[in-house]
Amino acid sequence: MEFKKILEKQSEESWKTYIPTLSIDCVIFSFHETTLQVLTVKMKDQDLWGLPGGYVQKEENVDDAAIRILKDRTGTENIYLQQFYTFGNLNRSESAFEKYDDNLWYKQRFVSIGYYALAEHSKVNLIVDEYSSACEWKSIEDLPPFMMDHRTIFDKALLTLREQLNNHPIGYNLLPEKFTMPELQKLYEAILSKKLNRGNFYRKILRYDILTKLDESRKGGAHKAPDLYRFDLDKYDVALKEGLKGNW
Amino acid sequence: MEFKKILEKQSEESWKTYIPTLSIDCVIFSFHETTLQVLTVKMKDQDLWGLPGGYVQKEENVDDAAIRILKDRTGTENIYLQQFYTFGNLNRSESAFEKYDDNLWYKQRFVSIGYYALAEHSKVNLIVDEYSSACEWKSIEDLPPFMMDHRTIFDKALLTLREQLNNHPIGYNLLPEKFTMPELQKLYEAILSKKLNRGNFYRKILRYDILTKLDESRKGGAHKAPDLYRFDLDKYDVALKEGLKGNW
Repeated sequence: MEFKKILEKQSEESWKTYIPTLSIDCVIFSFHETTLQVLTVKMKDQDLWGLPGGYVQKEENVDDAAIRILKDRTGTENIYLQQFYTFGNLNRSESAFEKYDDNLWYKQRFVSIGYYALAEHSKVNLIVDEYSSACEWKSIEDLPPFMMDHRTIFDKALLTLREQLNNHPIGYNLLPEKFTMPELQKLYEAILSKKLNRGNFYRKILRYDILTKLDESRKGGAHKAPDLYRFDLDKYDVALKEGLKGNW
Repeated sequence: MEFKKILEKQSEESWKTYIPTLSIDCVIFSFHETTLQVLTVKMKDQDLWGLPGGYVQKEENVDDAAIRILKDRTGTENIYLQQFYTFGNLNRSESAFEKYDDNLWYKQRFVSIGYYALAEHSKVNLIVDEYSSACEWKSIEDLPPFMMDHRTIFDKALLTLREQLNNHPIGYNLLPEKFTMPELQKLYEAILSKKLNRGNFYRKILRYDILTKLDESRKGGAHKAPDLYRFDLDKYDVALKEGLKGNW
C-alpha cells in the first residue's frame, strides 16, 4: 500500500482513538563514546529528521501516554522520563502535511507536550515502524536539520537537562554501574558542551555526597589505574527528590 | 440571569472560539508583609477556591493566551510569566460540573497548561468578573481547600519556583526597588517556607554578583540602620538568561 493511503487509513483511526489538539514529543538522550546522543526518526514521507512522538488516548492520562509512546518507540520501560515544556505556537506542525486533505488528523493544529528521557544506549531498540524510513542516534554536536519545530523542542530539552544539573543528580541511567571520575566528568562535559576544570569538578561532585568510592580501580592503560565509583542509590534518590546538598 | 444560564450561553461561545482539550491555569505569586501570597478566585457556582484560568483561541499562540488571561484576570501586563508544567490526568476537572449537560464546554476533558507569574502585590487588580463571587490573595502558609486538581498545580508551581532559586535570580518583581538584606532574606524564607542562616545567606547571595550596595541606609527603628541594595539589572538579566554564577 502506498504511504499516502496508509496515512489516510491511520488518520481515520486516530480521530476515533485520541483526544484532539494534543500530541507528545520525546527527546531521548543517551551517552555513548563520550558524546551525548539523541534518538531521531525519519517519516517515510519527509525529507527532514524528527523526534519520536505520538498522541493521547481518550481514556489515558497524559503521563501514561508518554510512557506508552516511549515503550512503542524504543522497546524500553522504567527509564527516567520527565515532562519539560509544552509547545503551542500556531502553525508549529501543520505545514509538514500541506499536500494532504485538510481533514487529515496529522494536519490539524497540535499543541505538543515535550518529555525528555535518559536511556541506557545499549538497551534502546531502534524501531523502524511502518511510518518511518529510519531511526538513528545522532550526536548532539552534529544534528541534522529537523522538521516542524523539533529543533526548538530539542533545544529546550537540552537547556532543561543542563539546569537540572544544578538541582538534581544525573548519571545513573547514562553511565555503567561502576565508573571513574574522568568518565563522570566527560558526561557532564557532553551535556554542557564545554570542558570543565578537573579539580573544580571533583570538589563540586564530592560535595553532593552521592558517590561511593570502591576498593577497585580500572585496570589497563598507560596511566595510573583510576579509582572506580558507583552512585550511593539511597543518597541519590534523596537528592532526586529533595535537591542537591548546598542548594536552597 | 441565573448563573446556570450564563454558563450555558458562554459554553456555546466557547465551542466556537477556543481550541478543544486545552486550558490554562495561572499561579500568580506576590510578596506582601513578609509572606508569599497566591491569587485565588471562587466561581459563583462552586464552594471551593481555584486558580484563575482560561482557554486558547483558535488563532492564538498558547503563550499569548497565557498573557491575555493574566491581563484579563489581573489588569497587569509585562510581569514575569513562566510556563512550568502541563496537567493531564483523566477526570482532573470534569467532576466540578457534574450537574450540567454533558455537552457543556466546561465539562469536557481538559489538559491544563500551568503558568506561574511573579507580580508586584500593589499593581494587581482583584477583578471579580461575572463568573466569580470572589478574588483574593491568600498566604501560601494558610491556603483554603482548592477545587479540581488546583492544589496539585499550586504545589508544582511552588516546587518549580524553589528550584528556580538555584538557577536564576528572583526578586526583581517581588521587592521594592531598594531593599535591605534582611528583606531579601525574608523573601527567600517565604518562598522556601524555612528560616535561613543569616551569614550563609549573605555569602551565597553576594557570590551571585547581582546586587549593588547603595550609599543609603534604611532610617528609623531601634537598630543600626541597615544598608540598602538594589539589583544590578544588567547582571540580573545575564543571570536570568545564562544562570547564576557558580552553576554548571
